[in-house]
Amino acid sequence: MNDPVSRLIFELSKLPGIGEKTATRLAYFILKQDPDYARSLAEAIQGAKSRIGLCEECFTFTAVHPCSICSDTSRDQSLVCVVERPSDVLSIEQAGVHRGLYHVLHGALSPLDGVGPEELKIRELFQRLSTKLTGIREVIIATNPSVEGEATALYLSRLLKPTGIRVTQLAHGLPVGGQLEYTDRQTLGKAMMNRIEVTTA
Amino acid sequence: MNDPVSRLIFELSKLPGIGEKTATRLAYFILKQDPDYARSLAEAIQGAKSRIGLCEECFTFTAVHPCSICSDTSRDQSLVCVVERPSDVLSIEQAGVHRGLYHVLHGALSPLDGVGPEELKIRELFQRLSTKLTGIREVIIATNPSVEGEATALYLSRLLKPTGIRVTQLAHGLPVGGQLEYTDRQTLGKAMMNRIEVTTA
Repeated sequence: MNDPVSRLIFELSKLPGIGEKTATRLAYFILKQDPDYARSLAEAIQGAKSRIGLCEECFTFTAVHPCSICSDTSRDQSLVCVVERPSDVLSIEQAGVHRGLYHVLHGALSPLDGVGPEELKIRELFQRLSTKLTGIREVIIATNPSVEGEATALYLSRLLKPTGIRVTQLAHGLPVGGQLEYTDRQTLGKAMMNRIEVTTA
Repeated sequence: MNDPVSRLIFELSKLPGIGEKTATRLAYFILKQDPDYARSLAEAIQGAKSRIGLCEECFTFTAVHPCSICSDTSRDQSLVCVVERPSDVLSIEQAGVHRGLYHVLHGALSPLDGVGPEELKIRELFQRLSTKLTGIREVIIATNPSVEGEATALYLSRLLKPTGIRVTQLAHGLPVGGQLEYTDRQTLGKAMMNRIEVTTA
């Protein structure tokens, strides 16, 4: 690993979805560019990692404390959307479908992988719910539609029930632009079960 | 672009084959890891770029001069394999099918993109051929089987003809493990044209 090219390929291949072949292609691309690109890419990597921490309120990644979402008073403070990862916050923000706050669990329950409630930011969620001055009206659980995500949603909704706060979950159904033919049976079942009335004007 | 995460995503998305979505996934992965990973990835990028230059003999990427292949006296000095890019050297080395030297052109002729013979290391190839103490016996042209690669191969072979050096080119044919059904017509045509006698022991 003394060879700088092999070392670069090795480090790049640790990235998710990047095998040795892709890492090699990326490494040669970097070598082909101006030295400026290598410098600014390296700085961006280190800069992001050293300047980004977790928001003390919602636990998403942020460079300012509290994060720009938590400190935005124009957002609906009575609505909290619970997600698994910081990248989920970005996805929902980009969709522009939520004007409330977030709470990042940093994972989902997965007993086989040793991830229990203590490993997630669940205690912090309840602290937030109890100490928040303005009351929380609704918790929207937006965990992934996976086994772990669903288990986490169920666990949270049971814990939240005694608080009397409204608990909702993202709907399952057909993906927009998708085709019925290529939709798996479970999704189709959920879409059928959650069918809605067609309203004609 | 003041936000360190956006800047990281922006820099990563300049990599080939990495769109904004993948760049976002990679950025969040980097943020999730130990600071050690960000540091060693950043160092590998800068280290490779600052320590790697072109071999003055064959023009491949190298940290030592001349490169490990050019300085390896056990290799066949009378055989030169001409390739388009430094990554092609790696591919052929990994296949272990060439025990001679290399010459990297750094591209292929592409008049529409403004790449003429002057932009490639063609002059340097002829300097090498004429100044080399031990005679070059054969030049193997291993440019890509693309329009530009083929044009470059043709151009080089015409230039080389008067030198009397043997000029060969990699064979076209069916990919090993491939299926006839999925092979394009041109490849199939070349495979048929270059068919070889079956020898039975």
